[in-house]
Amino acid sequence: MSSAILILSGPSGAGKSTIIQNAKNQIGDFYFSISTTTRSPRDGEVDGVDYYFTDKEHFEEDIKNGEFLEYAKVHGNYYGTSLKPVHKALDEGKLVIFDIDVQGHRLAREGITEPITSIFITPPTLQELKKRLLNRKSDDIEIINRRLKNAKDEIQAIEEYDYLIINDDIDIATKAFISIAKASRFKYSNKRLDSFRQSWLEK
Amino acid sequence: MSSAILILSGPSGAGKSTIIQNAKNQIGDFYFSISTTTRSPRDGEVDGVDYYFTDKEHFEEDIKNGEFLEYAKVHGNYYGTSLKPVHKALDEGKLVIFDIDVQGHRLAREGITEPITSIFITPPTLQELKKRLLNRKSDDIEIINRRLKNAKDEIQAIEEYDYLIINDDIDIATKAFISIAKASRFKYSNKRLDSFRQSWLEK
Repeated sequence: MSSAILILSGPSGAGKSTIIQNAKNQIGDFYFSISTTTRSPRDGEVDGVDYYFTDKEHFEEDIKNGEFLEYAKVHGNYYGTSLKPVHKALDEGKLVIFDIDVQGHRLAREGITEPITSIFITPPTLQELKKRLLNRKSDDIEIINRRLKNAKDEIQAIEEYDYLIINDDIDIATKAFISIAKASRFKYSNKRLDSFRQSWLEK
Repeated sequence: MSSAILILSGPSGAGKSTIIQNAKNQIGDFYFSISTTTRSPRDGEVDGVDYYFTDKEHFEEDIKNGEFLEYAKVHGNYYGTSLKPVHKALDEGKLVIFDIDVQGHRLAREGITEPITSIFITPPTLQELKKRLLNRKSDDIEIINRRLKNAKDEIQAIEEYDYLIINDDIDIATKAFISIAKASRFKYSNKRLDSFRQSWLEK
């Protein structure tokens, strides 16, 4: 299996986590990218599962060394996507899956030379998204309204993605995801292509 | 199922026909594009299976009306890819599969507004291609040499394709094709995207 990168974006409430959970035994060996943070673990959070937990000094050293695809400081704590575990997983031939926003997708396209496939996942309508967010009962109305505004902005960026999954049936959406994930291993980077072409002609 | 276009290119001897044959019951409803020709049917050739057979007058009228994606005159006979059955199949929600060369792929990218996914399929090496062509015993050495020269030229155009399948194991190559074919229905055309976005916001 070839290593490759698969990026998922889409509004909170689009069903990304459920889709990955449903598909996880059918897409071969993969690594789901986890964020690194300097905030303290909450009850039940596990290092290497929920986040990579680190301290400010190490985080800032990694920033200096260009080890982050993206990072931000929120309420005094750093959050970022470290490239170290990504490169390790790629070296092991794994598919690396990112759940990142439109801006993270842009940074990945600029900063990563491995072959990238990207999917925008969305609920069928804005109304349906609102319904799902209200039903989750996990966010207060202010956060829901911010999520809905973000969704309206992000929907304008679908052109930047390879595929669009409109998640109005979770089984169909999962099957679509599995097909795209399997296909993503047959994308090629220009680097890989040069060496393939050379050996193709010589052997 | 959404309609979409899937283009296969690659050297004669890459295994394209075998892959489509193996995959045909696993990729949903599809239409395999057939060429139109003015030459007479040979023994055993069936209209609508091997070719669409037509006469010079109708062919030239269709040229005038822009009904061909591509056409050529060879030894006094026309050969071409008619867009009429393609549009009919797309209207029926089918996946339309083309087996065309690098030049045909370029014309399709220019002339068709439906979402296109393209795959370059190749044997693992030039030597292996030569071996396969010699083993087929269907072509004389002059034709084989021309095919090898074409392959060396076409391999330079892989960058223009979405996916690369290196066919050194027909089962793996078929599985790759099936995943890419299924995924291709989740590509979107800009036209389709505009109307989706509008209804997404309004509903």
